Amino acid sequence: MDHLKETERSSKQIYAGKIIDLYVQEVELPNGKTSMREVIKHPGAVAVIALTKDGKLLLVEQFRKALERTLAEIPAGKLEPGEEPETTAVRELEEETGYTAKSISHLVSFYTSPGFADELVHLYITEELEPLKTEAHLDEDEFVELMEVTLEEAEGMLANGQIYDAKTAYAVQYLQLRRALQNT
Amino acid sequence: MDHLKETERSSKQIYAGKIIDLYVQEVELPNGKTSMREVIKHPGAVAVIALTKDGKLLLVEQFRKALERTLAEIPAGKLEPGEEPETTAVRELEEETGYTAKSISHLVSFYTSPGFADELVHLYITEELEPLKTEAHLDEDEFVELMEVTLEEAEGMLANGQIYDAKTAYAVQYLQLRRALQNT
Repeated sequence: MDHLKETERSSKQIYAGKIIDLYVQEVELPNGKTSMREVIKHPGAVAVIALTKDGKLLLVEQFRKALERTLAEIPAGKLEPGEEPETTAVRELEEETGYTAKSISHLVSFYTSPGFADELVHLYITEELEPLKTEAHLDEDEFVELMEVTLEEAEGMLANGQIYDAKTAYAVQYLQLRRALQNT
Repeated sequence: MDHLKETERSSKQIYAGKIIDLYVQEVELPNGKTSMREVIKHPGAVAVIALTKDGKLLLVEQFRKALERTLAEIPAGKLEPGEEPETTAVRELEEETGYTAKSISHLVSFYTSPGFADELVHLYITEELEPLKTEAHLDEDEFVELMEVTLEEAEGMLANGQIYDAKTAYAVQYLQLRRALQNT
């Protein structure tokens, strides 16, 4: 849709960080006027719907400084430079849960905040979990607590705000859809 | 979960912008060591699943500078200071689509990127659309194109990447779930 395109006139890097970079850009709008865009660059991330043999969903509880609270989320993590998303997905699953996946499938990818950030989340699913023989290690500054919950428990956590993020809400709805289709 | 909590030791504002602010914070981790967190503050946003009388979903196509491409998304927009999310939802629907809603219901809210941003999206649904009698006006720097699509068309757009963001992927899956439950 070329008639909607914004053409970059200038771009200034405000911040180069550990996880994100910030740019302020001047753009020419479709009507010829100019405006300003704030853009966060992010390496992208993966998340995994990981189901145990008895159908429980793995969640990791983690403190989120941006929100000043803990959230229960599906296992997730940032892409490392050059790493394939599927490799990241298995690595983060191992580090955060102590399980590995014998097989894993890509489900969907989505941008989380297209209005200001380029973060793309790749969502995977596995039902082929195996306990790791040797412990995997979290990042030095990462502290998480593993939970294994039924779909009904996850629905309750969504209702009471323990689950409160887009990828995990999507994951719970995905499992609701799968249950509904199995009952059709 | 207090044993997961990170305690702020310092916070430095790097950028104060039109839509987002950026802070870099030093935190004390649960093990007593320190680390650094990058935090984006955002005013929050609303999004609307808006269905016409014949069951079509309203989408707005819009250029997203952060992604350097257009996306087809459900109508959405940022909260203004002090504005109730439901008011924002109706206002953004009117501005972006030319429809208003006789009634509108809150469906779910979720944080889009809890790892680095506090953006909270409030998702609404309406099936009570009415064409506006007088045209509503978009923000000066906003250019969008309205689409009305069937659920099957939306599924195709998700498969081919025209739909590619979390809130719209969630919305399509919500309609899939509703269809599946109606067929049960």
